[in-house]
Amino acid sequence: MRPFLSHPFDDDKLKEECGVFGVIGVADAANFVALGMHALQHRGQEAGGIVSYDAREGFNSARRFGYVRDNFTKASLMETLPGDLAIGHVRYSTAGAKGAVIRDVQPFFGEFSMGGCAIAHNGNLTNAASLRRELIERGSIFQSGSDSECIIHLMARSIQKNLSERIKDALRRVEGAFSIVAMTRTKLIGVRDALGVRPLVLGRIGEKGYALSSETCGLDIIGAEFVREIEPGEMVVISDGVIESTRPFGAPQSRFCIFEHVYFSRPDSIINGRSVYQTRHQIGVELAREAPVEADLVCPVPDSGTPAAIGFSEQSGIPFAFGIVRNQYVGRTFIEPTEQIRNMGVRLKLNVNRALIKGKRVVLVDDSVVRGTTSRKIKDMILDAGAAEVHFRIASPPTAWPCFYGVDTPERSKLLAANMTVEEMRDWIGVDSLNFVSLDGLYRAAGEATGRNAACPQFCDACFSGSYPVAPSDQIENGFQMKAAE
Amino acid sequence: MRPFLSHPFDDDKLKEECGVFGVIGVADAANFVALGMHALQHRGQEAGGIVSYDAREGFNSARRFGYVRDNFTKASLMETLPGDLAIGHVRYSTAGAKGAVIRDVQPFFGEFSMGGCAIAHNGNLTNAASLRRELIERGSIFQSGSDSECIIHLMARSIQKNLSERIKDALRRVEGAFSIVAMTRTKLIGVRDALGVRPLVLGRIGEKGYALSSETCGLDIIGAEFVREIEPGEMVVISDGVIESTRPFGAPQSRFCIFEHVYFSRPDSIINGRSVYQTRHQIGVELAREAPVEADLVCPVPDSGTPAAIGFSEQSGIPFAFGIVRNQYVGRTFIEPTEQIRNMGVRLKLNVNRALIKGKRVVLVDDSVVRGTTSRKIKDMILDAGAAEVHFRIASPPTAWPCFYGVDTPERSKLLAANMTVEEMRDWIGVDSLNFVSLDGLYRAAGEATGRNAACPQFCDACFSGSYPVAPSDQIENGFQMKAAE
Amino acid sequence: MRPFLSHPFDDDKLKEECGVFGVIGVADAANFVALGMHALQHRGQEAGGIVSYDAREGFNSARRFGYVRDNFTKASLMETLPGDLAIGHVRYSTAGAKGAVIRDVQPFFGEFSMGGCAIAHNGNLTNAASLRRELIERGSIFQSGSDSECIIHLMARSIQKNLSERIKDALRRVEGAFSIVAMTRTKLIGVRDALGVRPLVLGRIGEKGYALSSETCGLDIIGAEFVREIEPGEMVVISDGVIESTRPFGAPQSRFCIFEHVYFSRPDSIINGRSVYQTRHQIGVELAREAPVEADLVCPVPDSGTPAAIGFSEQSGIPFAFGIVRNQYVGRTFIEPTEQIRNMGVRLKLNVNRALIKGKRVVLVDDSVVRGTTSRKIKDMILDAGAAEVHFRIASPPTAWPCFYGVDTPERSKLLAANMTVEEMRDWIGVDSLNFVSLDGLYRAAGEATGRNAACPQFCDACFSGSYPVAPSDQIENGFQMKAAE
Amino acid sequence: MRPFLSHPFDDDKLKEECGVFGVIGVADAANFVALGMHALQHRGQEAGGIVSYDAREGFNSARRFGYVRDNFTKASLMETLPGDLAIGHVRYSTAGAKGAVIRDVQPFFGEFSMGGCAIAHNGNLTNAASLRRELIERGSIFQSGSDSECIIHLMARSIQKNLSERIKDALRRVEGAFSIVAMTRTKLIGVRDALGVRPLVLGRIGEKGYALSSETCGLDIIGAEFVREIEPGEMVVISDGVIESTRPFGAPQSRFCIFEHVYFSRPDSIINGRSVYQTRHQIGVELAREAPVEADLVCPVPDSGTPAAIGFSEQSGIPFAFGIVRNQYVGRTFIEPTEQIRNMGVRLKLNVNRALIKGKRVVLVDDSVVRGTTSRKIKDMILDAGAAEVHFRIASPPTAWPCFYGVDTPERSKLLAANMTVEEMRDWIGVDSLNFVSLDGLYRAAGEATGRNAACPQFCDACFSGSYPVAPSDQIENGFQMKAAE
Repeated sequence: MRPFLSHPFDDDKLKEECGVFGVIGVADAANFVALGMHALQHRGQEAGGIVSYDAREGFNSARRFGYVRDNFTKASLMETLPGDLAIGHVRYSTAGAKGAVIRDVQPFFGEFSMGGCAIAHNGNLTNAASLRRELIERGSIFQSGSDSECIIHLMARSIQKNLSERIKDALRRVEGAFSIVAMTRTKLIGVRDALGVRPLVLGRIGEKGYALSSETCGLDIIGAEFVREIEPGEMVVISDGVIESTRPFGAPQSRFCIFEHVYFSRPDSIINGRSVYQTRHQIGVELAREAPVEADLVCPVPDSGTPAAIGFSEQSGIPFAFGIVRNQYVGRTFIEPTEQIRNMGVRLKLNVNRALIKGKRVVLVDDSVVRGTTSRKIKDMILDAGAAEVHFRIASPPTAWPCFYGVDTPERSKLLAANMTVEEMRDWIGVDSLNFVSLDGLYRAAGEATGRNAACPQFCDACFSGSYPVAPSDQIENGFQMKAAE
Repeated sequence: MRPFLSHPFDDDKLKEECGVFGVIGVADAANFVALGMHALQHRGQEAGGIVSYDAREGFNSARRFGYVRDNFTKASLMETLPGDLAIGHVRYSTAGAKGAVIRDVQPFFGEFSMGGCAIAHNGNLTNAASLRRELIERGSIFQSGSDSECIIHLMARSIQKNLSERIKDALRRVEGAFSIVAMTRTKLIGVRDALGVRPLVLGRIGEKGYALSSETCGLDIIGAEFVREIEPGEMVVISDGVIESTRPFGAPQSRFCIFEHVYFSRPDSIINGRSVYQTRHQIGVELAREAPVEADLVCPVPDSGTPAAIGFSEQSGIPFAFGIVRNQYVGRTFIEPTEQIRNMGVRLKLNVNRALIKGKRVVLVDDSVVRGTTSRKIKDMILDAGAAEVHFRIASPPTAWPCFYGVDTPERSKLLAANMTVEEMRDWIGVDSLNFVSLDGLYRAAGEATGRNAACPQFCDACFSGSYPVAPSDQIENGFQMKAAE
Repeated sequence: MRPFLSHPFDDDKLKEECGVFGVIGVADAANFVALGMHALQHRGQEAGGIVSYDAREGFNSARRFGYVRDNFTKASLMETLPGDLAIGHVRYSTAGAKGAVIRDVQPFFGEFSMGGCAIAHNGNLTNAASLRRELIERGSIFQSGSDSECIIHLMARSIQKNLSERIKDALRRVEGAFSIVAMTRTKLIGVRDALGVRPLVLGRIGEKGYALSSETCGLDIIGAEFVREIEPGEMVVISDGVIESTRPFGAPQSRFCIFEHVYFSRPDSIINGRSVYQTRHQIGVELAREAPVEADLVCPVPDSGTPAAIGFSEQSGIPFAFGIVRNQYVGRTFIEPTEQIRNMGVRLKLNVNRALIKGKRVVLVDDSVVRGTTSRKIKDMILDAGAAEVHFRIASPPTAWPCFYGVDTPERSKLLAANMTVEEMRDWIGVDSLNFVSLDGLYRAAGEATGRNAACPQFCDACFSGSYPVAPSDQIENGFQMKAAE
Repeated sequence: MRPFLSHPFDDDKLKEECGVFGVIGVADAANFVALGMHALQHRGQEAGGIVSYDAREGFNSARRFGYVRDNFTKASLMETLPGDLAIGHVRYSTAGAKGAVIRDVQPFFGEFSMGGCAIAHNGNLTNAASLRRELIERGSIFQSGSDSECIIHLMARSIQKNLSERIKDALRRVEGAFSIVAMTRTKLIGVRDALGVRPLVLGRIGEKGYALSSETCGLDIIGAEFVREIEPGEMVVISDGVIESTRPFGAPQSRFCIFEHVYFSRPDSIINGRSVYQTRHQIGVELAREAPVEADLVCPVPDSGTPAAIGFSEQSGIPFAFGIVRNQYVGRTFIEPTEQIRNMGVRLKLNVNRALIKGKRVVLVDDSVVRGTTSRKIKDMILDAGAAEVHFRIASPPTAWPCFYGVDTPERSKLLAANMTVEEMRDWIGVDSLNFVSLDGLYRAAGEATGRNAACPQFCDACFSGSYPVAPSDQIENGFQMKAAE
């Protein structure tokens, strides 16, 4: 995995659930889609799928568990995905799922009387459960356990003649967050919900080709030129080199997910004109200002804490070093480990650079604290290696609320910050000091010079603030308690 | 792969050919060996093998292509390797080999009249070809293409009654570099050649268990305590918690491989009491002193150039940043890529953080230059991203001579530094400046305060100096020309 | 493959497209279903699927390409199919399909508001294309290319509260041949169309368990006792040891597929109280009566021609011998054969027992002639081995019309008998004589002492007679020409 | 599996341990070897290997577990075996082996100073254990557990300059049975021991190509013309279209394995000018003469009992029918069956044709009785199906002694006939009558009109008579008791 992006204890991190990618107007589009998905692999590592369209061969699709590079790079498979129009999707497993099934892997495909349509969805629909009930009642047969399949069935029920109109019809019925890449036989379609929670960018490739990608790094890898972001509430329909833009969902109001800046997006992606790497570096600077400490060494928790640690080091003047080294070829863990190996615990993943740490007062910079269990283990390792003091600095505010917009979060009771004050967390983790960057500090680092506008926040920061821009109706029905109005 | 350790263009790097590991005196020793091999995976990624011994089940072995974590972690396989004594080996493919075959994968095993013996060898025998000819002449049947198999056949010919004596007999006949871990039914054996070119360390685990490992990071992962290095020319025989040490090969003279410090070893390993990370950091400091430059940004070529880049930044005061990001889940590349994907070239592996680089004078720090082809590509990327100037600083001297002691080097004619002056290299790569750390600077960084002792160098630095501590006799027979005496 | 059942040139045979099996009221029902499918493997060798239901685990399913014994026997898979109610399906590939896809593999499953329902279908719907068009128009999303999926969507549109009523609703809308095994959470359901074209039998197992199977051999393998055949037009709903029988499709008239007697069914199955082996033996007797010949030896074309050859030998007094031996472990052919191997042709599959054949006048008994290409090759082999004369006797009438009721037949233009008289066929194949059993002879052998009742045939014999009991409406729409009324 | 050749209860049968095949003088010889091995698959189903030689590519080899058709037919593998000279080997697993290992799979290969040599061995060396001890003592390293590897090491010790002379040297040291196919860079070599226990035939293919095969069916499949058998004690060296024949092992005396006629060889093979099928048919005739019985039906135990059953039917006038049908796609059994499936027992493999059997007096003809356990099970099935009487007729004499010449036999105490009289066996199996063909009857059926010459038997019949033509010295050392002289 890339430096700064990943974290050795993925199971104690929030997880982006999807990445989407689409290309039109280049030969063998599926090859480009595969590369784009590869660049977006950090957004979903469990499985991926591609649908392509070729005038002679019709629609073809392939879905596979595992990494893009292990599947969608083989000539034997890619030859089955011909055509100059294709879309793809990478996904994480859904929280709590008993076992992944291949039919849950997107893109979803529907054959309509006016032709086929494939859809790849990044985000989460907050009224999917009730939509699903209603559709089954009326004769729809669901093939997957995925909420995103509702969109296809809503389209099938639409009386519009045109597939892009049917998509609009369907999306007007859903609530929640969505950045969608879809395709018909002749069109590549991109849509973002009215709040623009999840990212989606447009690029140009070759003579008259276009690409849609969750992040700009997906454009870079195929050599596409960044054109612009798809805007909140916008739908673009690209065909024959022409882009048609509409805004079907009323007045949009941007509430981009601030956690994309903190952890999800790649450090070499650019969001809203800002380098993600620089934002993270700047969070470190803010942290050093807000929570200074006397120490000998600043070390990142690899790899995702690195840019903030460098920023912290620069602002504080405390030397930066890699005091913790990842112990393994990451991305995949041990297959069916023996009991004995499992007991090795943290040592399997990380090794402390003892010669650097011994006798030092160490500032550890991590991107976030979710359950907190790994913070404790890392603290133990550092102390075992002979550190004199351990100070944790966290490059995000306390994560106290679950996300319902396409991120896999533990339920609220499992979130450390939902149950403890910062002081309690410090004691529980057992470190000399613990500080989180403030919400305002985070907003400043992300480019909002005056910090957070409490009346109308510039980002979705529900996971920190409990302020949900869209009411999670399925969840409320299931008993979820929103934050009391203050 | 771990930060600082690996490099995106492995094919333009020197490659360590092996790592060895052994454990005695703990239940299910093979599990520990698997972990040790996992920690040593950077020393050999093509294949691995384990031999274990159990009083009831006898010797068992397993050899597999691929990563340790993909093979030697499955309970179903590990159950076939019972016993409290086991050794393991990880290896690279041999240069120029037509295709890897599983019977070339070590450890090698021989059944002798006094019982079985397994051997894992890190290094290279410089008289293997003539030994092999002689042995075949006398009736030995070779089963592998590996030179290391000679050792087993030499043992079979020995008239000693005792297996450890037979090992001594055999090793007295070989020339070159070897760090060997071997086992009989009751003994774990470690040996280093008289120059101690390749590393081997001893650790203690549990009540009366011991471990041998190529590097200290292999001890860390299994929770073994570092005891000491096996010394040049030493042979240790460990049995029942007792270590017996002899020096069977005459007067030793330490000539440890200096490239272990530069690139091969893990940054969290400790060699001769020195942190590899700190040595690399210090190379960066030396470089900044020897070859200062006015610039805006110091960037490592990820991941192996990172510690030196940090050192360069600290010494020069020029800010450090990750201007280049690895594009893929490394360790494994695309399987059977389509032509189109192959043409994507460098973009598949690296992405420039454009927002950081644009308009900047950039110092790029890399660990070494072998063929030089990747340096050119990386320079192109940085310029495409809008850098104002590009200065290359290399954390090792020019690599001008092949290694014959267990490292996979291109033949001399392919080494850029064997054919060009530094100025010519600078022009060929096309950068504003190019500097290598001096041999003395490298020695200083590695702890030799007064630099290299030309009369009697403290390290083997043949790849830089052409000064070979053991004449490569097979190679000379094949026409290799040694450096003319100066 | 079993003797008498299979034929070395499957591609020149009509192919049954499916076998169905279901069990209720025994623990681990899926294991029994797997065995039943294994016994029915000759009815479909490409793929198989099982759906099971367990009160705690809900519905589970598995679909696999390949043989039952290679997939549905592994404990690891079978453990995922718990419960005491399960159904299964084996299938051939559909004629002309570009490539098999796993989502086409039955049973099909639908989640309805009153619970799930799985369906396995043997047969073919002759109005599937128009049904499909209509359903898509009204908002159904098809997930497979299989016509059988229509049944699930028709069920979803039904307004019945009860799943078995919904099945009736759906099946009243379809035309063609079907023997269906279905299941809900508590019921095992069996249905046959009003003509009873395809077989389906009921068996009893254990205390209160029941099984449904395409053939009696499926009951034998699980130790179930044969109870009775499901009757044409009957629907049975089995729950809690109680069988409820209804006849939802009006007045039935039995038109059982006579080709089941000739080739499809296993020789150890019993149809309508008659042993399939004995019927085939009797066809040989009829053939010897209708078309006697002076000869030295009667040899079957292995394996399916064997019982008729024995009957021919007994009736004619000409000795029986296995003059042709199958050359390979059958069931699966060479994987990716080299060109050279492919050119070996018939020798790969058959070898002549030269010592038996040389100088003899040989009667070859085969079950049917479809394209005729293999008959020519076998004749060549026999003559090459030195036979003096070759006489072909075919245990079925000329196959001159395609089947639209669940059998994979070549299009009419490819059927030898659709284009030639028997004399022309004899000359084209190049044998000394060629005779087919008469339609009346076949009926007599199948137990109809007075032969075929032309006014109202006792079987479906459309493939021989062109007399289709259900008009193939989709085919007619596509231009298929029915036989002119005589 | 082929009719008459295989038996549903392989584990209660003697098993031939190997088949060998070689081709010289045709392009892509390995393809022909693969076909030959495929035709010989019945002689060894566990694994196979091929070695080929090409002037440019040198020696190449591939060894695989599983069937020939699943491995040695893929273009990707066969391309790695170029050249116009190749040999191959198929093998069974050795009795009592803990687990098969790929390095035990032949051909074995040795690199000698005068070039490489590959050897494929059918048979068994009766002094292998003592040879092995001696060789290890003198410095040989064994790589496999196979006794046949001794031959390679004996060759390596020979002082002959020429590889074929070294083979002679080696084979003069071994005792037991061997039919060997070997190759050097330019020669294809065939050898049979002086008794000619195991078969080996020579064929001609194309302009100047030759083939060696265990049986004639291997020649048939590649279209080679049968030339002659390699004679007992003969060695042929084929090079450039020229055959050189020598007799290096003193005076030969033919003692061909009579069990090849009974069960091992394919029914379409020709041994010593006699059709194996006809010999088996004739055994049935002899049986009917020696042990007539009043009955309604003669049924073979499929498939190997079939020809004898036909002979019995013809001689006795009792009708022949297939009353037992094999239940499964044979060749491979269930993989990891669940407990429940395992308990299904005999039903998994066989099904009785109840309609034929009910109320009948049935003669069951089987090829041999080894442990007798399956005879009991089959008897149970037949009685369960309602047979009135069951008479067993066995187409070989009682198997009372183990074979040490290349056949996998249970130890003596497990052989039913070693512990019981025929009457006791009849009672233990529980049938109305039980008869074995006499040794003289078997010899007559195999073409010896006057029966067995007790003074100097024409065949090796040690498994029936206990008269071993070569003393099994390793076994005697381990305590095996030869039959007392009479």
